[in-house]
Amino acid sequence: MLYNTAMQNRLDHLRNMMQSAGVGGFLISASCNIFYLSGFNRFLVDHDGFLLVTRSNMYVITSPLYTHAVKKFSPDLAILETSPDAWYAQLVKKIATKEKIQLIGFEERDLRVGEYFDLKEEKIELKSVSLRNLRIQKDEKEIAAVQKACKTTDTVFEKILPYLKEHVTELAIAGIMDTLTKELGAEIGFPSIVAFGQHSAVPHHMTSDEKLQKNSFVLFDFGLKYDSYLSDMSRTVFFGKPTTQQVKLYETVKKAQEKAIAYIQHAPDDVFVKDIDRIARETIEKENFTPYPHALGHGLGLEVHEAPTLSVYSPEKLIDNVVFTIEPGIYQPDMGGVRIEDVFVKQQNIVKQLTNAPKDLIVLS
Amino acid sequence: MLYNTAMQNRLDHLRNMMQSAGVGGFLISASCNIFYLSGFNRFLVDHDGFLLVTRSNMYVITSPLYTHAVKKFSPDLAILETSPDAWYAQLVKKIATKEKIQLIGFEERDLRVGEYFDLKEEKIELKSVSLRNLRIQKDEKEIAAVQKACKTTDTVFEKILPYLKEHVTELAIAGIMDTLTKELGAEIGFPSIVAFGQHSAVPHHMTSDEKLQKNSFVLFDFGLKYDSYLSDMSRTVFFGKPTTQQVKLYETVKKAQEKAIAYIQHAPDDVFVKDIDRIARETIEKENFTPYPHALGHGLGLEVHEAPTLSVYSPEKLIDNVVFTIEPGIYQPDMGGVRIEDVFVKQQNIVKQLTNAPKDLIVLS
Repeated sequence: MLYNTAMQNRLDHLRNMMQSAGVGGFLISASCNIFYLSGFNRFLVDHDGFLLVTRSNMYVITSPLYTHAVKKFSPDLAILETSPDAWYAQLVKKIATKEKIQLIGFEERDLRVGEYFDLKEEKIELKSVSLRNLRIQKDEKEIAAVQKACKTTDTVFEKILPYLKEHVTELAIAGIMDTLTKELGAEIGFPSIVAFGQHSAVPHHMTSDEKLQKNSFVLFDFGLKYDSYLSDMSRTVFFGKPTTQQVKLYETVKKAQEKAIAYIQHAPDDVFVKDIDRIARETIEKENFTPYPHALGHGLGLEVHEAPTLSVYSPEKLIDNVVFTIEPGIYQPDMGGVRIEDVFVKQQNIVKQLTNAPKDLIVLS
Repeated sequence: MLYNTAMQNRLDHLRNMMQSAGVGGFLISASCNIFYLSGFNRFLVDHDGFLLVTRSNMYVITSPLYTHAVKKFSPDLAILETSPDAWYAQLVKKIATKEKIQLIGFEERDLRVGEYFDLKEEKIELKSVSLRNLRIQKDEKEIAAVQKACKTTDTVFEKILPYLKEHVTELAIAGIMDTLTKELGAEIGFPSIVAFGQHSAVPHHMTSDEKLQKNSFVLFDFGLKYDSYLSDMSRTVFFGKPTTQQVKLYETVKKAQEKAIAYIQHAPDDVFVKDIDRIARETIEKENFTPYPHALGHGLGLEVHEAPTLSVYSPEKLIDNVVFTIEPGIYQPDMGGVRIEDVFVKQQNIVKQLTNAPKDLIVLS
């Protein structure tokens, strides 16, 4: 069903990467990459199956318990069944011998050490080849799926605000967000962050039973999944009456995001991601605040955090059809924290924003 | 909060395993084991943090973004923060040097090859040590949590039966089971298997949009999570009027489970798990059916499949306080399939059944 042009393009991309790396085969183990290249995502547990991609073939290596599901999904997929006599490493060896493959690529960020030892025991020559950039450029369907997830994210944000009442807990709000997500036909992307008051000053706050008090920032960071693709948005609102400094803090974060986007849009060519991060940081420093202790943003797709990382440490350029977030923040224990995060896609010099919830400071009471 | 006797016992157990293996430290990477030993389960992504257990200390190695969450969870946990200048492998090296540790154990089924390479680059001597049996014996609180999950599982089963009507789909039934689970205050343990008719003859069937037809087996295999601990139960009912052979098939599976349990209960000592599997298989073969192409059962706790595996290939004995499933099945494409699965805990010669939904053949119409 999925062996359309898009899927063929992905395989071609992988085979180009294989050729550059000098490997004749690739053992794909990360479930996101198995799904990306084959469309199959029904393994109950990670590493219940692998893909072995060679120059001309693609094999699914798995237990006979999955044969029916794989065949049903696509009768075209070649299956190698493991058995007590032929474990996956032996099956990889068999194909390598049959197709005269000297060197097999693997994902060192995903393959387990025990699996590596098993392959080594079969005298298979292995080479670590990074697939970090395999999925970096999205096709139209992928962008459409992220966009749909983002649209639902906007709706959840709009619908959650009336629930912010004095003494409601962070966990209660997060629970309602989960329910709204499912009612809207999406899946939960990752555990929602809901942070009241001082908690908003903790970038990775774990949603707790804290109760909402008057005069607090309320920070939301959440994402949904639609057709396997994710969204990721942060918004910060104020409950009560903000001080002048708190308003300034908010406006500074907002400006940092705007400056970063403007920088991408007004550059004559592809820009370095480290410069985008730098622009946002400088905007915050200029207002005498301390910038965020995290990267400015990250790629987004089948995983919440994928390539590229928009960080001062990254050497890469922002190329076309990359879906990414921009999420500057300021975290001040005395005042609270603000983060504003949206999802974007760059196509030539147009930066399209996919999440579209309001960004002017919302004050509730 | 969790540094009570139970948690100390777990650490003692690990340290005994360390001593037997001759390692002075252990790098714990699997999230279930991190949770089991520290109580902390708030890492958003696997390997966002590690535990390093030494003879006298336990360290959490993670990004500064998690420091607040770890401290809040337990001020007693020692944290080593990663930074661009000191990545986790360097931090492991630092502790190894400080505590004069020669050899560090690791989980080869979980550690990624890239992480292993990083540690090797720091000239850390590593030894693969299996932690498969670390969590095999459950304490009272763990058994109570599984029991609570099992009780809710019984309720979901009872409540789902009235929804079985002609033309309802497998996915619709699974969706209602999810909703019931949450309404009852539990989490979904794993994607429910709902298999109608011929699908019931596929042991790992993936719930589909198949519609219920008259005269079909309906197989359910599902589990819930309560306080991080799982349940796992299978039941098969008949929709319509079963043939004599279909009734015999059902009764044979039921008898196979009963024989397996009786064998454990009537043995003078701990029994070999392979013998339990053998008894169930022989019961099925005696009635001229082909037994299940999977193991008879598995350990259950923080993971759906953990030690022991009740299989003819396993060398181990069934010891006390092990929580396990027994799930014989017969899968016949012409008649459909039946699996009956329950959760048990063995304490001396008493085998206590934790799931308790009815097992006499339920015929609906």
